[in-house]
Amino acid sequence: MSEVSQELIRSAMAGKGLDALVCALPMHVLMLTGYWPIMANSIAIFTAKEVELIVPADEVENARAYTSIPLHAFEPAALDRLVNPVHAVTEPLIARLRALGLEHARIGHESEQFLQPASYLTMNLYNSALAQCIEKVFPEVKLQSADRMLEELKARKTERTLARLRRGCEVAKHAFLNGVKAIEPGYTERIVASLFELEHSRSCKGQPFDRVESFFFCMSGPNSGQADSAYARTRHRLIDSGDLVMVHCNCSYDGWWTDITRTFVAGAIRPEYQKMRDAIARARDAALAAIRPGATGREVDRAARQVLERAGYGPNFTHGAGHGVGYAAANPDGRPRIHPCSDDVLEEGMTFNLEPAIYFKGRYGMRHCDMVAITARGAELLTDF
Amino acid sequence: MSEVSQELIRSAMAGKGLDALVCALPMHVLMLTGYWPIMANSIAIFTAKEVELIVPADEVENARAYTSIPLHAFEPAALDRLVNPVHAVTEPLIARLRALGLEHARIGHESEQFLQPASYLTMNLYNSALAQCIEKVFPEVKLQSADRMLEELKARKTERTLARLRRGCEVAKHAFLNGVKAIEPGYTERIVASLFELEHSRSCKGQPFDRVESFFFCMSGPNSGQADSAYARTRHRLIDSGDLVMVHCNCSYDGWWTDITRTFVAGAIRPEYQKMRDAIARARDAALAAIRPGATGREVDRAARQVLERAGYGPNFTHGAGHGVGYAAANPDGRPRIHPCSDDVLEEGMTFNLEPAIYFKGRYGMRHCDMVAITARGAELLTDF
Repeated sequence: MSEVSQELIRSAMAGKGLDALVCALPMHVLMLTGYWPIMANSIAIFTAKEVELIVPADEVENARAYTSIPLHAFEPAALDRLVNPVHAVTEPLIARLRALGLEHARIGHESEQFLQPASYLTMNLYNSALAQCIEKVFPEVKLQSADRMLEELKARKTERTLARLRRGCEVAKHAFLNGVKAIEPGYTERIVASLFELEHSRSCKGQPFDRVESFFFCMSGPNSGQADSAYARTRHRLIDSGDLVMVHCNCSYDGWWTDITRTFVAGAIRPEYQKMRDAIARARDAALAAIRPGATGREVDRAARQVLERAGYGPNFTHGAGHGVGYAAANPDGRPRIHPCSDDVLEEGMTFNLEPAIYFKGRYGMRHCDMVAITARGAELLTDF
Repeated sequence: MSEVSQELIRSAMAGKGLDALVCALPMHVLMLTGYWPIMANSIAIFTAKEVELIVPADEVENARAYTSIPLHAFEPAALDRLVNPVHAVTEPLIARLRALGLEHARIGHESEQFLQPASYLTMNLYNSALAQCIEKVFPEVKLQSADRMLEELKARKTERTLARLRRGCEVAKHAFLNGVKAIEPGYTERIVASLFELEHSRSCKGQPFDRVESFFFCMSGPNSGQADSAYARTRHRLIDSGDLVMVHCNCSYDGWWTDITRTFVAGAIRPEYQKMRDAIARARDAALAAIRPGATGREVDRAARQVLERAGYGPNFTHGAGHGVGYAAANPDGRPRIHPCSDDVLEEGMTFNLEPAIYFKGRYGMRHCDMVAITARGAELLTDF
């Protein structure tokens, strides 16, 4: 993990009077240690001087490939006993807290609501189990919510993280460029999504990512018109000639998430689609021009929204123009929030998506979602295609 | 939702002195209401007489397709304000608890550790936010952990659930039967997994499932030898002629999960593979013969393990012979646990996987994982292929 980021974390901890952070949500473990846990039962301990990871024995090899910090293994399963998953992990947790001299510490932890991207098809959730255990064993410890601090820390990426996101976007780009031939009338949305995934798998070959999770969605015709919900959905609908076909992808590369949408036409483009496409392209350009360190989320949103409003699509752009991505996808709380009410201030190294869109409920919709990084002077487009 | 299951839930609640259950983990919302939430921010309230669901506005239509219980919508996003996800949901939660007369109730909730399958690529986690809110607004309410009760309730499926799991296994079967042609030397594991997913998408056509999530994994050669970890992993490895190629799938059909593995050979089968295959088939048959209501998990595990031990593979069968599936996949805590130390008693309507396997670390591995339902007299094999 880059030193810059460790400094940021330690400075935030000092600002809150925290001696340590203890986190188990995979996105936070990734931020604190560089390792993206699989089963979500790993625990990161981050102090003013040390970073350690408690990890299930069957993930030690994976973790070692990503980080050089001390790893402490626990046995998540055995044949000679039924393992209690909380007991298995709290034994080394207690031992490490003691070894690090944290018996009386002020410890920041994950307390309330988060949006956590899937690290695997099933995830371990400790809920209140870790906090309860720490409080019971170390009555002198002060547990304090680190929720907001963690959300804000995730906004700024190191150069190393940016390099990975850039590369991830490059892989996804090839899936989009090659997948487009799958958009044929007569295919179902599900088949189209699968064909994009297949192209994505081909694009992964030779890339430096060990763990790739890809989620492609296809929403066609009227289904694209309701794609402004919090989630994307692929259905069984048959694609028809002349349909708008929205393809959305969230792919994860060693834990770094992308958030990209393109909207295609199955067949010849109609004039009303061309008009929408032009307006969305101009909205995007206006937003890109507004991005610079010091600008607020609301200013960037305004730049995009104004273009769509003037083109007559104001009521059809039903969500914010973007949100932070990288440690998470599909998280409207991700910093910076590019939203009409957001005072979030853009800083160099932040990454977010930019998603101008036009939805006509019951008819069709179009979205163009890019990934953007904030540079010293403006915006770097990570999805230049 | 079937009445039988509601009776079971209410009888379990009565046994614990609970007036209500308040659950937000998607697997529990599914069990209590029939709806498999997408963003995982829905909340089910289950009392002695009522079942209600608090659901984000953009999922109401989805939820309505699955359940006829009262739905109470909240707005998870807006343009005129930055919505706090906890405030958005706790307003209707407080109102409904009041309307249902639960201000002084004993309420069971999700307290500590669970394994939750992914309802979407990102999931809302409330952690302690709901409990804190309830305790603050209703100081007379007694919150009580319902963790163990919920885990046990998930074991017994209704006839309707069984019908869905049967159908899901049928869809997955076609993906396996058609996907096998993808197992060719020269393909990467990732391409093979994608080709199985594509076949799975084809199999879904015309099926009654609205929401299907499919996760196929391919582990070949030495990678199959370490497939005894808690998770499956697809890598970039090129499949070589003569490799064992393990294909594992966890697919979800409207929230009902399957757990299936088959091991193929890329090319001609070697004698040592044939010997393993025979032993695994006999282990499976022995386990199936041991399954009946009243038998324990350890007896079924013993039946399979004994065959593998006698064939000389004892040390190579490194995990339990199975675990409950349906509401979850890849959950070794799923009831009934088919494990050397499990006293879980099999009952009609329970479903689990049966996964005799032989692993040679660093060399190769073979697993045959079936889905099984317990009938009045024995076992029904849901994956008869």
